[in-house]
Amino acid sequence: MHRTLPPSSLLAPVPVVMVSCASDRPDVKPNIITIAWAGTVCTKPPMVSISVRKSRYSYDIIKETGEFAVNLVAGELAGACDFCGVKSGRDVDKFASCSLTPAKVRGLSFAVGIAESPLILGCKVKQTIELGTHDMFIAEIVSAAAKEELFDGSGKLCLDKANLVSYIHGDYYETGKRLGFFGWSVASKKALKRRNMKTRLR
Amino acid sequence: MHRTLPPSSLLAPVPVVMVSCASDRPDVKPNIITIAWAGTVCTKPPMVSISVRKSRYSYDIIKETGEFAVNLVAGELAGACDFCGVKSGRDVDKFASCSLTPAKVRGLSFAVGIAESPLILGCKVKQTIELGTHDMFIAEIVSAAAKEELFDGSGKLCLDKANLVSYIHGDYYETGKRLGFFGWSVASKKALKRRNMKTRLR
Repeated sequence: MHRTLPPSSLLAPVPVVMVSCASDRPDVKPNIITIAWAGTVCTKPPMVSISVRKSRYSYDIIKETGEFAVNLVAGELAGACDFCGVKSGRDVDKFASCSLTPAKVRGLSFAVGIAESPLILGCKVKQTIELGTHDMFIAEIVSAAAKEELFDGSGKLCLDKANLVSYIHGDYYETGKRLGFFGWSVASKKALKRRNMKTRLR
Repeated sequence: MHRTLPPSSLLAPVPVVMVSCASDRPDVKPNIITIAWAGTVCTKPPMVSISVRKSRYSYDIIKETGEFAVNLVAGELAGACDFCGVKSGRDVDKFASCSLTPAKVRGLSFAVGIAESPLILGCKVKQTIELGTHDMFIAEIVSAAAKEELFDGSGKLCLDKANLVSYIHGDYYETGKRLGFFGWSVASKKALKRRNMKTRLR
């Protein structure tokens, strides 16, 4: 049995990422804004969307430069991620306050990434759509870079090693147990073994 | 140090949801499609986006009816969720194959929800945007309903009880440890105690 609730933003878990941006205007500091209203929206070309309130310090920077970096958040960055979500870049230098290091992002001319993030996506805005409280920036991923320690010996990216953080209804969570891989509900015994899974589940 | 990767859809964790849809056309069965390319895109009005390939059985149903339901996925639904992602509604009745029960969704005329899902969002399409491999449906959430057992005694929704599933680079994961709440990096000792957190982290 289900109980009715007022309609609201209850999709979960959602990613919570630190979006960084910068400008060549002398009065603008590089900034970090925490975004939970983010998603992958296309595979080819690879695209993400982030939704940002017009009132945010980062809004104008992204709007003017057409660029941002998406920095995935590992457990050890969760506190900094929260801090960047409650403070404004108008009042605080978030890189300095959180002891984070700006990093060059391939393919971008303005935005810097966060060197401490396990994975950085360089993004170029393709469309902006006004929706209500938030404007959605739809952006193409033009570059990707992951920490060296996330690759195995054969050069495969193992994002499970990053202990990524998700956001559920106001709370931040670590990643829990791996349940399976895409296709595991119909996989052969051989494929299950190769992918380190004991059983199918359905 | 970061290593460069080819740009691709590496935002993570992303939600993985079962999107259900139906039609009044006699040749169309109610269907379920697994979607990881989903996100919250606006707070007011509450809106989500889902990205769907044009070739999918569900694509035409959603396009024609302008409706779908987003069903959040708990750990015990992960196998069914995977199955609905690898099989097509053209070949299989997914409700029957996965022993799932269609449920009426408030505010929708066509789409049914999944009674076994912890939380169901009724969604009406407002815009469709062609991006490449995927079209993005931007939809308003017109209704929400959660399982009775997810509410505490005071009527508060406790989504942490649902053991929701997320998707990271091809794998499904359970939700792990709670790290904190929005604002916890700057919260007072009193607020920390009230929200059941021992320490701030930054």
